[in-house]
Amino acid sequence: MRTFLDCYPCFLRQVLATLRLVTDDEAEQKRILDLVMARLPTLPLAASPPEIAEVIYGLLARETGIEDPYRELKAAANRRALASLPELEALLAAAPDRLRTAVALAVAGNLMDLGVQHEGFKAAEEIAAHLPREFAIDDEPLFRRRLQTAASLLYIGDNAGEIVADRLLLAEIRRERPELELTFVVRGGPIINDVTIEDARQVGMDAIAEVIASGCRAPALLPGKMGAAVERRFRTADLVIAKGQGNYEALSQEKRPLFFLLQCKCPVVGRDLGVAVGSAVFKAHRGA
Amino acid sequence: MRTFLDCYPCFLRQVLATLRLVTDDEAEQKRILDLVMARLPTLPLAASPPEIAEVIYGLLARETGIEDPYRELKAAANRRALASLPELEALLAAAPDRLRTAVALAVAGNLMDLGVQHEGFKAAEEIAAHLPREFAIDDEPLFRRRLQTAASLLYIGDNAGEIVADRLLLAEIRRERPELELTFVVRGGPIINDVTIEDARQVGMDAIAEVIASGCRAPALLPGKMGAAVERRFRTADLVIAKGQGNYEALSQEKRPLFFLLQCKCPVVGRDLGVAVGSAVFKAHRGA
Repeated sequence: MRTFLDCYPCFLRQVLATLRLVTDDEAEQKRILDLVMARLPTLPLAASPPEIAEVIYGLLARETGIEDPYRELKAAANRRALASLPELEALLAAAPDRLRTAVALAVAGNLMDLGVQHEGFKAAEEIAAHLPREFAIDDEPLFRRRLQTAASLLYIGDNAGEIVADRLLLAEIRRERPELELTFVVRGGPIINDVTIEDARQVGMDAIAEVIASGCRAPALLPGKMGAAVERRFRTADLVIAKGQGNYEALSQEKRPLFFLLQCKCPVVGRDLGVAVGSAVFKAHRGA
Repeated sequence: MRTFLDCYPCFLRQVLATLRLVTDDEAEQKRILDLVMARLPTLPLAASPPEIAEVIYGLLARETGIEDPYRELKAAANRRALASLPELEALLAAAPDRLRTAVALAVAGNLMDLGVQHEGFKAAEEIAAHLPREFAIDDEPLFRRRLQTAASLLYIGDNAGEIVADRLLLAEIRRERPELELTFVVRGGPIINDVTIEDARQVGMDAIAEVIASGCRAPALLPGKMGAAVERRFRTADLVIAKGQGNYEALSQEKRPLFFLLQCKCPVVGRDLGVAVGSAVFKAHRGA
């Protein structure tokens, strides 16, 4: 998905929230926000929002000298989500359809995205409260069929905190298909509250899947900027799940079949997907 | 109230909405949005948001060649509000406290502000549905006392559509105090969906109050930029009601007593006033 002019105010809002994590000095915040406003016009609308975010947050890191402003918030979100993992597992154990519930939990976890909601991370207990009752696009039955014959699955992660629900889903997939080769993709470096290798380790993702980095520091897996290892697996995996809006924005023009699993949080993505803001989406792309 | 960095994304969002009324050409929208992003950093945060809006919308008018992009929308909003005037008058007639209800209707009308809510104008029927049940700041009793001894009242208008509810309130004030000298202030020229002399004429405000223009084309009455006539009355009126957020932002540092009557629509104004977004406010300023 390309960038729309609606994304400009949203970039500024998110950048300001990030700057406020780094400094209380309003003059310094303004200096960098002004730089962002000078940079935005030079970036083509044909680029996806995560491609633009890569440039802007790179500028932020250089100008502030802070590589990972969300480091503490991410670690705290992971801890809080881990603390309620037993509760979420109990919910799964009681579910009439475990896989379906695990998918729903993973989508509910997507509401923890700090890049969009700045009121603070929701505790994992809230994940259960945000379980979608229905999916606006529901290709879970197709995913379930594909899963029965797949030998490999690549799961492209999204945010910290949420990653605990992703781990739960991958554990459930592993339970259904113990021999499946599972790979979890994290970002190539810290970017907003997105998952990095540290987050994957903190939540024990490496015990369930092989964890590899995307190869770039954008809030998505970017076509054309994938590391060699991830690119090979992205091209050859039998199943790919791309989690969250960022990965949708980056990969919606991709030729290969894959599944998008996300909570729609903004009107621009909603228009692109044909769903309302707030919708849960599990969409088979290119026949998946 | 000065401008905060939070206002930047909001300015861009409002400018984009305005640009879309003028042209469907995204390249042209981007060109002007880019100019706005180049201009914003040069404007001091010490200025109030309406002062910055005056500059930005001046730029828009020059660049697009369209002086009044909201012209049709404003006229339509006035027509719709006028159409349900009998209903609102019936509501007043049935009210246990007419003046209090008229004040509440005027605040409810403030929800029609297109500059903040872009889903389109609400019909005046909806004004009644949005009647505030309580005021977060409620100096209406003080206003009522002051009204008994005042000889003159200056009412600084806000938006089209809403102006019909303002007329209703002024008619009610006139009913209580027939001899009161009433003045209604409109903007000095078209700016977003704010009231101009045309709107005042369309809704018959000139039959109830003397209508004078602010002297500048900002979405507020700006200290230091008032026309001579309005400045004299602003300084000498026994009572002043400043309607809406824009007038609050512009006049909150004023030395003279006045009443702010508004619906709080943004977190920055809410923080300044100490109320939650969505609150109705009737605030005595400087002892009023």
